[in-house]
Amino acid sequence: MSAASTEDHRYVLSLGCPDRTGIVARISTFLAEVGGWIVEAAYHADADTGWFFTRQAVRASSVDMSIGELRERFAAVAAELGPETEWTVSDTGERKRVVLLVSKEAHCLHDLLGRAAGGELPADICAVIGNHRDLEAVTRQHGIDFHHVPFPKDPAERGPAFEQVRELVDAHDPHAVVLARFMQVLPSELCEHWAGRAINIHHSFLPSFVGARPYHQAFARGVKLIGATCHYVTAELDAGPIIEQDVIRVDHADEVADMVRQGRDIEKLVLSRGLRWHLEDRVLVHGRKTVVFS
Amino acid sequence: MSAASTEDHRYVLSLGCPDRTGIVARISTFLAEVGGWIVEAAYHADADTGWFFTRQAVRASSVDMSIGELRERFAAVAAELGPETEWTVSDTGERKRVVLLVSKEAHCLHDLLGRAAGGELPADICAVIGNHRDLEAVTRQHGIDFHHVPFPKDPAERGPAFEQVRELVDAHDPHAVVLARFMQVLPSELCEHWAGRAINIHHSFLPSFVGARPYHQAFARGVKLIGATCHYVTAELDAGPIIEQDVIRVDHADEVADMVRQGRDIEKLVLSRGLRWHLEDRVLVHGRKTVVFS
Amino acid sequence: MSAASTEDHRYVLSLGCPDRTGIVARISTFLAEVGGWIVEAAYHADADTGWFFTRQAVRASSVDMSIGELRERFAAVAAELGPETEWTVSDTGERKRVVLLVSKEAHCLHDLLGRAAGGELPADICAVIGNHRDLEAVTRQHGIDFHHVPFPKDPAERGPAFEQVRELVDAHDPHAVVLARFMQVLPSELCEHWAGRAINIHHSFLPSFVGARPYHQAFARGVKLIGATCHYVTAELDAGPIIEQDVIRVDHADEVADMVRQGRDIEKLVLSRGLRWHLEDRVLVHGRKTVVFS
Amino acid sequence: MSAASTEDHRYVLSLGCPDRTGIVARISTFLAEVGGWIVEAAYHADADTGWFFTRQAVRASSVDMSIGELRERFAAVAAELGPETEWTVSDTGERKRVVLLVSKEAHCLHDLLGRAAGGELPADICAVIGNHRDLEAVTRQHGIDFHHVPFPKDPAERGPAFEQVRELVDAHDPHAVVLARFMQVLPSELCEHWAGRAINIHHSFLPSFVGARPYHQAFARGVKLIGATCHYVTAELDAGPIIEQDVIRVDHADEVADMVRQGRDIEKLVLSRGLRWHLEDRVLVHGRKTVVFS
Repeated sequence: MSAASTEDHRYVLSLGCPDRTGIVARISTFLAEVGGWIVEAAYHADADTGWFFTRQAVRASSVDMSIGELRERFAAVAAELGPETEWTVSDTGERKRVVLLVSKEAHCLHDLLGRAAGGELPADICAVIGNHRDLEAVTRQHGIDFHHVPFPKDPAERGPAFEQVRELVDAHDPHAVVLARFMQVLPSELCEHWAGRAINIHHSFLPSFVGARPYHQAFARGVKLIGATCHYVTAELDAGPIIEQDVIRVDHADEVADMVRQGRDIEKLVLSRGLRWHLEDRVLVHGRKTVVFS
Repeated sequence: MSAASTEDHRYVLSLGCPDRTGIVARISTFLAEVGGWIVEAAYHADADTGWFFTRQAVRASSVDMSIGELRERFAAVAAELGPETEWTVSDTGERKRVVLLVSKEAHCLHDLLGRAAGGELPADICAVIGNHRDLEAVTRQHGIDFHHVPFPKDPAERGPAFEQVRELVDAHDPHAVVLARFMQVLPSELCEHWAGRAINIHHSFLPSFVGARPYHQAFARGVKLIGATCHYVTAELDAGPIIEQDVIRVDHADEVADMVRQGRDIEKLVLSRGLRWHLEDRVLVHGRKTVVFS
Repeated sequence: MSAASTEDHRYVLSLGCPDRTGIVARISTFLAEVGGWIVEAAYHADADTGWFFTRQAVRASSVDMSIGELRERFAAVAAELGPETEWTVSDTGERKRVVLLVSKEAHCLHDLLGRAAGGELPADICAVIGNHRDLEAVTRQHGIDFHHVPFPKDPAERGPAFEQVRELVDAHDPHAVVLARFMQVLPSELCEHWAGRAINIHHSFLPSFVGARPYHQAFARGVKLIGATCHYVTAELDAGPIIEQDVIRVDHADEVADMVRQGRDIEKLVLSRGLRWHLEDRVLVHGRKTVVFS
Repeated sequence: MSAASTEDHRYVLSLGCPDRTGIVARISTFLAEVGGWIVEAAYHADADTGWFFTRQAVRASSVDMSIGELRERFAAVAAELGPETEWTVSDTGERKRVVLLVSKEAHCLHDLLGRAAGGELPADICAVIGNHRDLEAVTRQHGIDFHHVPFPKDPAERGPAFEQVRELVDAHDPHAVVLARFMQVLPSELCEHWAGRAINIHHSFLPSFVGARPYHQAFARGVKLIGATCHYVTAELDAGPIIEQDVIRVDHADEVADMVRQGRDIEKLVLSRGLRWHLEDRVLVHGRKTVVFS
């Protein structure tokens, strides 16, 4: 948690593998051998899938080797845990990179820019890409590049625009591509290409109200709470693994415009929480679901 | 609110009609003319449907006539507001009647029995009807009649059982028929017969997870909040007007059994709130939605 | 609610007076006489103090007179309700004015600037006054004047600085003076001078953790929820009438820095909600408490 | 979590000790050596106090020895971690015992009886002790002993009554002594005697509104949320380590009686959650605070 200054940076190990006896012992013994002072440790054994997940953070200063050597040595441990094991070791002292995709709605962009400026987001926002120019000025005020990529009205003709977006995004090799109310459905090849890195905020409590105009759908149904969902983007619309959700109470006096206004606050909170957890390697995806060590 | 002792009972007017200028003036002038000291007043003008709703409570002691005469005199006012006007005048000093339909799950029944015993529910529970005998003992401990109506396994053969339930319920002419985890789909003629009085608790945040085993559906989808919905029963399954909803946070460590356990608390809260509002004439139905003057 | 464009602006009547029979009738009859189409109406009869409160909004287009004439005619009605009656009639088409007092913390300022830019706040931010220059740049980016008023370290010598703040504020005759994490205790004469207009955000769930460093106090006590409180400023520190409060869950893993970060989100929400309600004349103060017709 | 049937019971290790490198490795290596299949594991390193906490649950069937032998062997590990180490090893297959202290308010007792009957509480309620007879009947309906211990009006003369309560409680050697709205302040020697086992539910969001009539205090202050706090009892009134808290929204229309009614729901939830966590050895006390591995 808190700020990751280079003085007290941490090495963060995230891992998922088939569950069996002795995994915690194997990993923690390794960490002890390299001198790692554990400041955060979380585990989850998933009875449903028989999978084991862990995230551990050690003080970098307690480990007497480079992160490269640490990774090399841990690779041998991971190999013992089986060929399906997936793991990463990251350094909180290395800034992560984020690219934002936006359209006309300002609130999520404005919120993330403010959090980044305040040092709350453990990443740099490298670029903002918009299919409209509405959010260019506010982006540039924060000293961040804005790229305008116009999208044709006909969905069938958007291929070149998406290709341009892809190139602009990939130039930064970002840890997260955030669809901050981008309002465009990514083609499946981009979903695949950015798998595990593309994060969307959907303005409903999924799986309710998939697709367009969810506040209108919520108003028509007469629900008493509205919500927002932060999830990884997959080829199936609004069906990717959910990272975070939250809701706010509404009542009969709230018209669609009121729901839109109140919903913005939930969208901002849910997106910023989900993104921060993703950037801190707290989110492990398994199938259609996530483990979140928040 | 508070207790409706006969000492300080109230007359409650609930009304819905097409909106136009002067309705509030007409109604409040009438109440002033009969001496009514207003202790609660709520209004809603629905821009979407052009409908007007109000609920007003006056001290019975301030009105110098019987409730029968009050109704008679108000009928003339209502007539002025147009033929579509729907209204009721009730007396909080007259105990309302509730019949509960249950199956095997005890928590909602136990919760409502406790609230009734504690004087929190402004009604008498006249009878409990179960398609199993599991909840007979706890019902009788509270001095309430329990009727066992076995249901055949084949849904096509349940007609006589539902007919028996109907007769047992109608014998009490209840203000509310509560499906307290009854787990049986009412035939459409019963939905029609008890329209506006049959209240169900569904163990999901509708419209997500309609139908059977919603906690299993929620677990499979990996949602981060689970919920419950109290709604009026209509012929379309889990699609009736929503009275109240609420949610509770879950995470990756919660298995289906944990969701079931935590969900019970939300079911109890949501059902008890929705039922109380219904019994206090705080819920006005219009089309597929409700106005709740909570 | 929603935006107050001049096309569909509304006249809003807010009133408090000693309760008795016939008040609603008197007011609503008046509104009907002037042709007022009521779009929102809320009432509260306070049993504890014997006071009556109402807020009513009518379509301006439905009233065939100027707001000046409307006020003049309503004054006669108010006079009938007794000498203690307090009331206002405002026009949502007239922009209200807000002045912000800040120090070094950016989040509340940044949030309010974003909401104002997005048209969500029914007011213009006329000026920002800071006792430090940290927030000058972000203020000016939004095209808003920033005034730097340095404060001496010795509290006993701050009189002239407060006098300068007072002049800068009063130049705008604002409807709200918002202490957006200003971190300075207003002298009692300023509390008196801006009574009912000075709004503070305190970063605790009052009355817990009055005064300095509330997150440190919360951490030391080991509470499981932290909160924020938006309240009117009075001479007694953190004891003014509460407009809005909310909380967020924390646990043993959250250090003070985590509480500070998570608390910011609650501060922003609570302040923005409280301020909007104040600006929409939804908050009526009575003694140490508020009636909020949200 | 879930039910602790003897088939799949678990051994639960809870431990607190001064933090240093290698603790996780030492404990998990020990568990691996005895064959322990870990199904739940949680850690917390407290930066503020330099203390380390863990709770781990292993399948009993995976460990090839008695719990007595497991404890004996773990004692050697604990000794390595220093003389300040505190730890327990419990078996979820051994039913725990709870004694309830009550007065006249039924809701918490009724709620706990229902949860125990529904198999939701991992413990047996051995006895209920009341200073009034109001709750005798409902207790006996559940087949549980009720002891009536009248309390003199004069606090100075209550010594013998408390002595009788102590004897009745200690006869069951309970894992938890729950003050379920007992409304009597325990003498400090009983606080000491039941330290870490006596659990109180206070009907406010502590540290706000300590002592008597907290809903009246909340009403007078005009707060917008009311709450409840489950905490360990210590000699200082309402100041013990907090296990769980929650809140519910109220508004100006809620009188004290409404707060009392709505507050009951929060009291029940907070007490039942806190008690369950305590009984599942999820709560570790350190100084004035708790670590809760929920």
